[in-house]
Amino acid sequence: MDFSKALKLHKKLRGKIGVKAKMQIKSLKDLSLLYTPGVADASLAIKENPSMVYDLTMKSNCVAIITDGSRVLGLGNIGALASLPVMEGKAMLFNVLAGIDAFPIPLLTQDKDEIISIVKNISPVFGGINLEDIENPKCFEIERELQEIGIPVFHDDQHGTAIAVLAGLLNSLKVVGKDFKDTKIVVNGAGAAGQAVSKLLLAFKDKKGNKLNDLIVLDRKGIISKSRTDFDEFKQELAKISNKNNLQGDLATAIKGADVFIGLSSPNVLKKEMIQSMNKKPIIFALSNPFPEIWPKDALSGGAKIVATARSDFPNQLNNSLVFPGIFRGALDAKAAKINNEMKIAAALALASCIKNPSAKKILPEGIDKSIVPIIAKAVKLAAISSGVVRK
Amino acid sequence: MDFSKALKLHKKLRGKIGVKAKMQIKSLKDLSLLYTPGVADASLAIKENPSMVYDLTMKSNCVAIITDGSRVLGLGNIGALASLPVMEGKAMLFNVLAGIDAFPIPLLTQDKDEIISIVKNISPVFGGINLEDIENPKCFEIERELQEIGIPVFHDDQHGTAIAVLAGLLNSLKVVGKDFKDTKIVVNGAGAAGQAVSKLLLAFKDKKGNKLNDLIVLDRKGIISKSRTDFDEFKQELAKISNKNNLQGDLATAIKGADVFIGLSSPNVLKKEMIQSMNKKPIIFALSNPFPEIWPKDALSGGAKIVATARSDFPNQLNNSLVFPGIFRGALDAKAAKINNEMKIAAALALASCIKNPSAKKILPEGIDKSIVPIIAKAVKLAAISSGVVRK
Repeated sequence: MDFSKALKLHKKLRGKIGVKAKMQIKSLKDLSLLYTPGVADASLAIKENPSMVYDLTMKSNCVAIITDGSRVLGLGNIGALASLPVMEGKAMLFNVLAGIDAFPIPLLTQDKDEIISIVKNISPVFGGINLEDIENPKCFEIERELQEIGIPVFHDDQHGTAIAVLAGLLNSLKVVGKDFKDTKIVVNGAGAAGQAVSKLLLAFKDKKGNKLNDLIVLDRKGIISKSRTDFDEFKQELAKISNKNNLQGDLATAIKGADVFIGLSSPNVLKKEMIQSMNKKPIIFALSNPFPEIWPKDALSGGAKIVATARSDFPNQLNNSLVFPGIFRGALDAKAAKINNEMKIAAALALASCIKNPSAKKILPEGIDKSIVPIIAKAVKLAAISSGVVRK
Repeated sequence: MDFSKALKLHKKLRGKIGVKAKMQIKSLKDLSLLYTPGVADASLAIKENPSMVYDLTMKSNCVAIITDGSRVLGLGNIGALASLPVMEGKAMLFNVLAGIDAFPIPLLTQDKDEIISIVKNISPVFGGINLEDIENPKCFEIERELQEIGIPVFHDDQHGTAIAVLAGLLNSLKVVGKDFKDTKIVVNGAGAAGQAVSKLLLAFKDKKGNKLNDLIVLDRKGIISKSRTDFDEFKQELAKISNKNNLQGDLATAIKGADVFIGLSSPNVLKKEMIQSMNKKPIIFALSNPFPEIWPKDALSGGAKIVATARSDFPNQLNNSLVFPGIFRGALDAKAAKINNEMKIAAALALASCIKNPSAKKILPEGIDKSIVPIIAKAVKLAAISSGVVRK
């Protein structure tokens, strides 16, 4: 790819999004209705009844993209200023795919408590908060602390990925004819995405109400088990709910007999021989980006039945851009106060349903397919209503 | 005025501004240039050379409207949420009049130090900060502390008003044939606007290099003088630079023999008899909004030669909407690191120059006249360059 093209295009645009007045001001009368003195009436109406802010301002359709630039793409801790092109790009995708007024707010501070306080304090104009590219475990604590601020707060690197993976997995299991509850899954990588994927898969119940029997997660040091003590409260929780049989060891140990490998780790850690040790018709999601845990052709020649990556230049791109426009559209439309597991699972099922007859080379739609947004949004909205997280 | 119309229009729009992608994403190739993986190149370019952020992102054209909702219009301390329609309206004006991507950020906190810290931390995406509707003296301290963050920080209630008043005054003096340096001016009101107006008038030098000989400011308790000790550091500074003869007393005392009354205070405090005690051809700026210090017809029947108000339904509306679009446009175009007095004075002179032959009923252009924006912007840009506040 010719990267200079990307730089040139950024220079030409000088900003991938802009602000646009929804009405022109052609006369002093327009001004008196939209600004002083008429605007005072809108302010007083909100002062009297704060929920009116959703009817009278941009809040109902407005999402902040918040980052501290501590873990941007594969670039690492590049800071707020250098993260801006990425956050702007995300805002652009929100706008193009879901018609949301998304605005990037990279923060200079990387202090957890300051980030929490700033997000609370700037929240009045926003109807939702998309946390982005914040390193773990800070991202978990920030998201947890912000759950009660009255608007949806969603760390896309975690949950967008988890939802896309669940959707892709459900359709992949259809292709290979396996039952969800009996599936043995190995998640390699226990960063933000790996933890969220593991938790969502373990929370999911199939149509018959069955959950996964077991799931194994690995971090850099090997299988996460109750016997280990070398980790924080978030991994401790993961140790509690996964790895029933308290298996210990490395990826080669974990993957023996598994049906599914989900990689959210590092390039080239999955070897052909490991795939050969899996159960029949193995499913490989090699989502390390831009360089996958194994290249698709090697996975296929190793016996993989289905291979997905995070890249757009191979079949089956699993990307959170399949998810975040629809889930925020649905949450905003529902006037949801938060995004809960019910809504995440509804999003995954809706996303999976977008492909009527999944095949090994087409488990999910393409990431810039706008037609999936209203389908996901509708399901998410219904789940928000039925699970009782709609604002009064 | 039918206020229900304003509320209806707000309900219909649900936001007076929105976000707009500058390019549509029609293919995976577009996506790869504007988002991953191409966007990484823009991020790395900024990481290497931070000033590139102005070339590769929206920062160069982006202004935050920051308030804590502590002093909104004439409504007082209505808080962040209720202030949002006003801040959105302001953002809309920035956009419509100057093509600036302005975004409203009302803050929940009203703590001075928290406000300062938040503005610093959210500054990466913004090329300028417009402080709005923050009570005094907090507004002075916040603005002072933020002067060194590398982008222009401008409290419009202070300086927008001051610049419009200086421009209106220069043209009014032309109409009545008086010389600036000999003019006796009374500023009634020592809030944010009153203090800024007084300081700018006292800083201004006419073509011959002459400054005002004297100026009297009054707060609620009367004339501000060095003899008084009942005020904060900001009024102390004002006492130092104004009221040379250490006059003491009330408005009736101060206004005797004055050429100009500038009211930034309360409705109906200026009486006909006071105007009658002024020098010949008195100039009355009764800027209390929406109810002026004296109604224009009473001022005129009291002998005023020129009357200006803050209202659009009388001749001579003096409004900061004449100023803020042009001064920010100029500061952004110049890549100025701050907005200094030289730029404020250049803006006032440019604004005054927009009316070639001022008359008693037309001292300045109308507030929604877009044609004045490039004229002010150009002068401001030149002043920024010549006064050396352009970023390297």
